[in-house]
Amino acid sequence: MSLVVVGSIAFDSVKTPFGERERMLGGAAVHFSLAASFFTDVRVVGPVGDDFGDEQYEVLHGRGVITDDVEHVAGGKTFFWKAHYEYDMNLAHTEDTQLGVFGEFEPKLSEESRSADNLFLANIQPDVQRGVREQCTETRFAGLDSMNLWIDTARDSLLKTIAGVDLVFLNDAEVRMLTEQPNLVRAAREIMDMGPSVVVAKQGEYGAALFTRDAGEGAQADRRSAEHRSGVSFFALPAFPLDTVVDPTGAGDSFAGGFLGYLAAQDDWQDDAALRRAMTYGSVLASFNVQEFGTERVARLTRDEIDERFERFREITSLEPAPA
Amino acid sequence: MSLVVVGSIAFDSVKTPFGERERMLGGAAVHFSLAASFFTDVRVVGPVGDDFGDEQYEVLHGRGVITDDVEHVAGGKTFFWKAHYEYDMNLAHTEDTQLGVFGEFEPKLSEESRSADNLFLANIQPDVQRGVREQCTETRFAGLDSMNLWIDTARDSLLKTIAGVDLVFLNDAEVRMLTEQPNLVRAAREIMDMGPSVVVAKQGEYGAALFTRDAGEGAQADRRSAEHRSGVSFFALPAFPLDTVVDPTGAGDSFAGGFLGYLAAQDDWQDDAALRRAMTYGSVLASFNVQEFGTERVARLTRDEIDERFERFREITSLEPAPA
Repeated sequence: MSLVVVGSIAFDSVKTPFGERERMLGGAAVHFSLAASFFTDVRVVGPVGDDFGDEQYEVLHGRGVITDDVEHVAGGKTFFWKAHYEYDMNLAHTEDTQLGVFGEFEPKLSEESRSADNLFLANIQPDVQRGVREQCTETRFAGLDSMNLWIDTARDSLLKTIAGVDLVFLNDAEVRMLTEQPNLVRAAREIMDMGPSVVVAKQGEYGAALFTRDAGEGAQADRRSAEHRSGVSFFALPAFPLDTVVDPTGAGDSFAGGFLGYLAAQDDWQDDAALRRAMTYGSVLASFNVQEFGTERVARLTRDEIDERFERFREITSLEPAPA
Repeated sequence: MSLVVVGSIAFDSVKTPFGERERMLGGAAVHFSLAASFFTDVRVVGPVGDDFGDEQYEVLHGRGVITDDVEHVAGGKTFFWKAHYEYDMNLAHTEDTQLGVFGEFEPKLSEESRSADNLFLANIQPDVQRGVREQCTETRFAGLDSMNLWIDTARDSLLKTIAGVDLVFLNDAEVRMLTEQPNLVRAAREIMDMGPSVVVAKQGEYGAALFTRDAGEGAQADRRSAEHRSGVSFFALPAFPLDTVVDPTGAGDSFAGGFLGYLAAQDDWQDDAALRRAMTYGSVLASFNVQEFGTERVARLTRDEIDERFERFREITSLEPAPA
C-alpha cells in the first residue's frame, strides 16, 4: 500500500568529528522517504527551489521514490541548514537556517497523494500538518512528528493536530513537555487519550519505546500484577550498538520511515507483532543512516543488509541468546 | 555459592513527590544484600554506630542476610544521608551527608567472608575496595561499583582497582568519564582492556546495557557485518515501565544485587545466557525497589513476584510477542 510523506526537503551542511559535507541532500521528508522505500511505494511532498536539480532527484529515484508532488518554486531557494556536532553526538549545534521556499510552504497534494493509503506528516508547523491531514480523507493511518518549538509556540494547534492522527513520534523529552507529565508511561497514556492509538517515544542513543492501548480486559491484563495496571502496553528496543556514529542527522526521520514503511505494507497495522517489527525496522534504518553522512549509506543500502541487521537486533535483545 | 558485599550501611531521610521518610534503613550494601538474598547466601560487611539496632537487623535477617561482619563502632554514628527528589526522579538533591563511622571504615573481613565464593565491592573509596579485593584470595568473581567522585579524585587508584575485578557496574556517563571516550561501545571495550570481562552500563530510566568480550573468531563474529566488528558483545534491556516511581534511592544497588545474586548461584557465571538472565533479575529487583520508599518493597517481596515480573520482561522485549 502507498505511503505519502509531507515535509522538508533540504540541503544540509554538516560537520562532525568524522568529517564534513557541504550542501548534501537532506530534510525530514527525504530521510523518511528513502528509509520507507524498502517496504512500500512512497510519494514525497515538499517544496524545492531553483538550486534543486537532477543530482538530488536521482537519489530519490534511485530508491523508487515518487517525486511528482515535489513542488518547484521558481526563483526560490531550497531549505538550507548548517550545523556541527561535537563528540557528544546527541546535540546538533545549528549555525545557520535559511527556510527559503519551505517558509511559505502550503502543501498542494495531487489526487494520487490525497488518496494514498497511509500518511506521514513530518515535522512542520501543526496548522499545515492539520491542513494536509484534512485533505487525505481516505487515509488508513496517519502519523506525525513534531518538535519542542511547536509545543512552545503552537501548542493548541498541535494538540488539535494530534487528535486527528493515529501514530505520534516524539522524543521522550517532547512527550513529557507536551503533557507536562514527567512519568513517561503516564505521559504516553495522556497522548493516547487525545486520540492516537500508538505513541513512539524516540530516545536517541537509548533506542525507542512503543506505547499502545492495552487490551484491557483481555488475557494480558489478567497476567499483570496490580502494580502495573496502567492501561498501556509497552515494548522497547535499544539503539543498535555502533562503535562509530558519523552523522546523526536524519536518524529520527529514518526511524519513522522504516517504521511506517514496514507498517504501510501490513494488512493489520495495529497488530502488536507488526508494530514490534516496525520498531525494529525503524531502528535498523536509523542505525544505517548514522553510519555515514546524510543519505549516503541508506541510498546504497540493500534489503539483505536490512534483514541481516534485523536478525542482529533479535540477538542483542533476546533474553535467551542463540547457542554459541 | 556465597556472595559477600562490602559497602555502606546507612540511615536515609528522603522526600519525593510521593511522600517522605525519616532515617529509614538504606546504604548500598543493604540494598544490594536484600536484592541478592533471593538467589544465594549473602554476607554483608560494613560499619554501623550506636544508633543501629534490632529494628534494622531484623530487616536484614528477615531476608536471611548474614550480618556477622557488620562492624559496630562503639560511640560512633551510622552513615546518614538526607536528600529530596523533584518530579524528575533522575536526580537526587543531597541536603546533608554525615559519614559517621563510614568515614573511618577499614573493612576487616572474617575468615568466612574472606573465603566467600563471590565478592561485590559497593561504591567506596577505591583504595579501600582494592584492600578488600586483596583479602579475598579465593573469590570466583569480583564486581565493583564506583562513582564520578572517585573518577575525579582518585582516578589512578580506581583504574588499579578495576584491573583486579571481573565485573564493573557504572552509570553510562561514568563509563564515558572514566575512559574519556564518548562512544559507549568503545568506552566499554577500553574498560574490558583493563582487565574486567563484563561491563554493565546502568542507564537509569532507560535500563542497562551489558558488554562482554566477543568470542572473536567464533560463529557470532562471522555473522556480523564489517560495520560492527567492535570486538564487543552487546545486550540491552529497558527499565520496567512503571507509572509511579516512589523513591529511586538504591535502584542501582538493587540492580547489582539481583544481577550478582543470580550469577553467584550459577555454575558458569560467564555464560552469555546466564549474564542475560542476570541483567533481567537485576532489572526486576531495581523495579520493585523504586515502587516504595527505601527497602520497604523488597523486604516483603516474594520469589513468585520476581519470577512473574521476569516473564513480563520477556513480553516487553520480545520481537515476537506472545499471542493475545
